[in-house]
Amino acid sequence: MAMRICRRAAPSTRVLSQWTRGLATVAPPVTQDSTGSKGPTAMVFMNMGGPSTTGEVNDFLSRLFADADLIPLGRLQSFIGPLIARRRTPKIEKQYAEIGGGSPIRKWSEFQAAEMCKILDKISPETAPHKPYVAFRYANPLTEHMYQQLLEDGFGGGKGGRAVAFTQYPQYSCSTTGSSLNELWKWRNRLEGKRNSGEVDPQGSIQWSVIDRWPTHSGLVEAFARNIEATLAQYPEDRRKDVILLFSAHSLPMTVVNRGDPYPAEVAATVWAVMQRLGMKYKYRLVWQSQVGPQPWLGAQTSDTVKSLMKKGNTDLVLIPIAFTSDHIETLYELDKEVIGEDAEGHEGVKRVESLNGNPVFIQALADLAKEHLHSGVACSPQMPLRCPGCVSERCLEQKKFFAAQAQHLQAI
Amino acid sequence: MAMRICRRAAPSTRVLSQWTRGLATVAPPVTQDSTGSKGPTAMVFMNMGGPSTTGEVNDFLSRLFADADLIPLGRLQSFIGPLIARRRTPKIEKQYAEIGGGSPIRKWSEFQAAEMCKILDKISPETAPHKPYVAFRYANPLTEHMYQQLLEDGFGGGKGGRAVAFTQYPQYSCSTTGSSLNELWKWRNRLEGKRNSGEVDPQGSIQWSVIDRWPTHSGLVEAFARNIEATLAQYPEDRRKDVILLFSAHSLPMTVVNRGDPYPAEVAATVWAVMQRLGMKYKYRLVWQSQVGPQPWLGAQTSDTVKSLMKKGNTDLVLIPIAFTSDHIETLYELDKEVIGEDAEGHEGVKRVESLNGNPVFIQALADLAKEHLHSGVACSPQMPLRCPGCVSERCLEQKKFFAAQAQHLQAI
Repeated sequence: MAMRICRRAAPSTRVLSQWTRGLATVAPPVTQDSTGSKGPTAMVFMNMGGPSTTGEVNDFLSRLFADADLIPLGRLQSFIGPLIARRRTPKIEKQYAEIGGGSPIRKWSEFQAAEMCKILDKISPETAPHKPYVAFRYANPLTEHMYQQLLEDGFGGGKGGRAVAFTQYPQYSCSTTGSSLNELWKWRNRLEGKRNSGEVDPQGSIQWSVIDRWPTHSGLVEAFARNIEATLAQYPEDRRKDVILLFSAHSLPMTVVNRGDPYPAEVAATVWAVMQRLGMKYKYRLVWQSQVGPQPWLGAQTSDTVKSLMKKGNTDLVLIPIAFTSDHIETLYELDKEVIGEDAEGHEGVKRVESLNGNPVFIQALADLAKEHLHSGVACSPQMPLRCPGCVSERCLEQKKFFAAQAQHLQAI
Repeated sequence: MAMRICRRAAPSTRVLSQWTRGLATVAPPVTQDSTGSKGPTAMVFMNMGGPSTTGEVNDFLSRLFADADLIPLGRLQSFIGPLIARRRTPKIEKQYAEIGGGSPIRKWSEFQAAEMCKILDKISPETAPHKPYVAFRYANPLTEHMYQQLLEDGFGGGKGGRAVAFTQYPQYSCSTTGSSLNELWKWRNRLEGKRNSGEVDPQGSIQWSVIDRWPTHSGLVEAFARNIEATLAQYPEDRRKDVILLFSAHSLPMTVVNRGDPYPAEVAATVWAVMQRLGMKYKYRLVWQSQVGPQPWLGAQTSDTVKSLMKKGNTDLVLIPIAFTSDHIETLYELDKEVIGEDAEGHEGVKRVESLNGNPVFIQALADLAKEHLHSGVACSPQMPLRCPGCVSERCLEQKKFFAAQAQHLQAI
């Protein structure tokens, strides 16, 4: 309750007019404490996640292939999905075993969220304290567990409070951020929304807002650029200017691209921004990795590109994972072992830029971005409510409506 | 000859070392005139062109479908190309008849080039006078006619002189700028290069440099943004913030995309830059138009997008041609008559932003860009020498080598 009152510290015009209409004698707004803080604020990092141990691979793959937002398999998804997952499990288990027995994405996500919150407490005392949470789409901690934790920690469930869904995919895709938001919306509905209380937006439920895309945030660009410069510095000076930069992003099936998914254009925006920061001095290409199955995916493929450039005598290549912010199987296994180890036969000229992981420039960027969002009073970007032109998902429609409507609870600081 | 001497005014280290080796008694460098001008400079605007009259449609289409850089039809290109052209001619003739009997692209290109040269003469006296030329890929004035004109005007052919190949496609594609450069390289070779004189780079031939891409030039972005704002101003204020911006670019076949063509990423960079200039305030999507034939092309398609958004009740849509700088059949017929007239049934909420055409902000941008290039002493962007990862064209290889090597003749001012 304290939190609800606190939120009224600087009431919106709408709330004020309600007061003046029906509650003329209401007590003046009070603040929670002498600092005027509107916190605590829950900062929820959303990502796909990965199995922390090889024993979790099958569960991870089952959830992944069951997700029609990520891999549209048609009506038989719930039947075909688990089949594909089971068939792929042994191979993928082996890959995780080779990169140390599991994905480091949980470790990095928890670290990044916690470190960001420490910075936020300092640079945004108005919304402090900030409490870090992680919600993965296909691995622990799952969205439902994160949401239950929020309730246990005193957010929502009648007690109000504010939470920010902060996507850790810098570029928006319906397959990634969209899928995580659909999941968040579903569990919010089940745990403290319509399916729980009968009301769409019951009094005292968590007030959500979303950081839904940040492809060219200056701190993100700076962090990528510095890592690239560090890798370039490993080449002898006379070779450096001829190194080719290959920005590699997870590909999408052409069915998703042709539906109008914004991801390819936003990845390109990141690449362009990083190249501008590097003075446009190097040859580069944006290429796409991790295609799977017989359907057409967006190319050119990273693996083909490396093979083809090597064949033409271009053996100084820098691979830059540009659409993920921490290490995962696509960097540690696919790029390091398959592309560099096999396609490039381990040639010393082919290197990968370190992932952002615990990079302090990156974590400062996350904090700056979060502060800007918290102070803006917006519920999401103007782009988020626009569904893909070819979208037919009712869930996307309802999810987008819900998050955009949260704007009514928010205000700029 | 005067020009050749003049170019020695500030000799490069390479030239100097030649002198000190073999020509120790050479006369000190002289300048052409008291202004120190290194001109005249030929400014060659390259574009695809279009038939100025309906009578030229068949010739235009024949050249277009014969171009494997644009539409790869395989080994039988020279046989299938003319067949397709002949079959399509009546339909396309009718379309040109409906937009006034021909394409305005020649008129606009000649106007833009001439106006830019006037500005350049003022802001870059060091390279004045600047002489405007237009070289179209599929219509008059063709590249070979432009080149012959250059020779007649006293450029090259033993007399030296400098020319800039200035692509009028802001975003680089092998199908467009690449094709024009291949054509320019071919005719340069025939008229004053290897096939003519036996030498790759004979003494006194034209010194070329290339402005090969400029997707986020600030003046270009400003011109687009102002035109969008002007169109938005036509909506009543309460509707304006919900208008959806649809940036529409000519699509590419997926074979070209998957070869690693840089165009989709550079178009996305333009869109992002324009949206940033507009404060990211509007909903938008990048969509792709003008698909033809049964092969898969990059989507989402402009036409489908408009139909689908209209069906969902989004009837305030602004179409923005983002990859061409003047009107042509894809704006005047495809967008205005097919997309707006048919797909949107002429709904008053669906509007097209004016093309850049004679826009003074745009023409100033061209001049700024050209001045920067002329003063930089570079032969082309660092990106241009990098072929597409999947490229197997020997012509691309040789063309890129040739233009990049022109750097040896150039120097910063």
